[in-house]
Amino acid sequence: MILVNGAHAQGVSVLDRGLAYGDGLFETLALVENEILNWPRHIERLRLGCDTLNIPQPDFAALDAEAHEVAAGFDRAVVKIIITRGSGGRAYTPPEKIVPTRIVTRHEWPDDYAERERSGIRVCVARHRLPRHPQLAGLKHLNRLDQVLASFDLTKCDATEALMLDTSDFVIEATRCNLFIVSDARLVTPNLDNCGVRGVMRSVVLHVADTLRIGVDEVDLRLEDLYQADEVFLCNAIAGIWPVIEIDQAQRVFSIGETTRALQAAVRAGGYHP
Amino acid sequence: MILVNGAHAQGVSVLDRGLAYGDGLFETLALVENEILNWPRHIERLRLGCDTLNIPQPDFAALDAEAHEVAAGFDRAVVKIIITRGSGGRAYTPPEKIVPTRIVTRHEWPDDYAERERSGIRVCVARHRLPRHPQLAGLKHLNRLDQVLASFDLTKCDATEALMLDTSDFVIEATRCNLFIVSDARLVTPNLDNCGVRGVMRSVVLHVADTLRIGVDEVDLRLEDLYQADEVFLCNAIAGIWPVIEIDQAQRVFSIGETTRALQAAVRAGGYHP
Repeated sequence: MILVNGAHAQGVSVLDRGLAYGDGLFETLALVENEILNWPRHIERLRLGCDTLNIPQPDFAALDAEAHEVAAGFDRAVVKIIITRGSGGRAYTPPEKIVPTRIVTRHEWPDDYAERERSGIRVCVARHRLPRHPQLAGLKHLNRLDQVLASFDLTKCDATEALMLDTSDFVIEATRCNLFIVSDARLVTPNLDNCGVRGVMRSVVLHVADTLRIGVDEVDLRLEDLYQADEVFLCNAIAGIWPVIEIDQAQRVFSIGETTRALQAAVRAGGYHP
Repeated sequence: MILVNGAHAQGVSVLDRGLAYGDGLFETLALVENEILNWPRHIERLRLGCDTLNIPQPDFAALDAEAHEVAAGFDRAVVKIIITRGSGGRAYTPPEKIVPTRIVTRHEWPDDYAERERSGIRVCVARHRLPRHPQLAGLKHLNRLDQVLASFDLTKCDATEALMLDTSDFVIEATRCNLFIVSDARLVTPNLDNCGVRGVMRSVVLHVADTLRIGVDEVDLRLEDLYQADEVFLCNAIAGIWPVIEIDQAQRVFSIGETTRALQAAVRAGGYHP
């Protein structure tokens, strides 16, 4: 089921600026037993994104209702929200009165994700790089060609996810996950001031680590730091936490560590992931 | 009139990857008296873009026919072509069999452009920056948030175009035009290896300069170089060549120089612009 501005629809205008320029934002929600998990965190990021892009804030109550409507009858569903700047304006210049487009779609809950949480995943390193761009860093905007091209790289290796480096060789994230390592009993995650998405599950992990009294550092990370880490994991709102058991065709192999397992348990206990 | 894959339509699928990720390319053509100006140059860039993004080449004969169809009955028209990777795949990962979406739309020929060619324009400097990203540099892809945000900056100043600097303070282009300066009787234009669009009119200007035996340098340009230039102009396929008569609220004022006028005349004489 698809809702566009609250009404059943299959299409959007050819002239929508989301299509023309990627002029918009999106969120991917886990809807479990009639509840949108981490909804306040999704709202917070969407609100910040709209402020940064000068898009009027969407009606969050309507989005809440529409997410439930498209997922009605499903125990678990992935719900995607897209907010675009709508149509109009003269080429790149937005219109004076912006009327955003609000799109809500339901997608299958992936049945292979639970097994990945249990047994871990292999990752490779994408050839495609992220540009360093502080003015857009952190946002989940619709300009996602970099993730698409890194996902092409991923299809060429025997792995579940591909790590993405920026143009200065820092490791930033994976194509659809944030990255954490455990080193000397501390949690370390890439500095996202220059690029990368500030993921909702990343924010949950930071919060949960705090409650578990695990120290966290946000730093410029290099691939060597991953090779020397005790544990590595990826996370996102739908995946939860995926332990990494192998990097780059077994260049480095990990067993699943106790910090990763403790965080998985705390995330589940806190109701942040099913 | 709008054609989607050759058929009359107003919308595209909500699931099209052009909307979801900006996963595609576009071209903006001048169609004058039943002829697409610079069509081989547009084809060349689109072909390179499809190769780089791993999108199957579109049917250029169909695009040619559709551009004429949407513009039928108009002496002058702007025709926009969008090629997306179509729908499908699992999130960022493209489907194994890619079926591109081909969109052709007609837009009004802007009636204020001829006056800008004659009398020149004022430009300001956008606050929003371009990221340095060699893997996507030169392409006219659908990830255009940077141009949208720079156009927002443009609306706040009394100017026709906004110059865009990259994150290393080099001047790259304007929001919808390429940039040239004239210094010591040579033509100088920004190096586009790290960012910017390789415009069709830019390519025409390089060609025409060669026939006029004007030397050209492609270099890393700074704003100071513009202030010290003898002449400055912007160009694109619809605009032709716009002399710049003022930068940044009269910080620097130019009269329209003879090299700019010679290039305008040669571009018109060559049939590259009406």
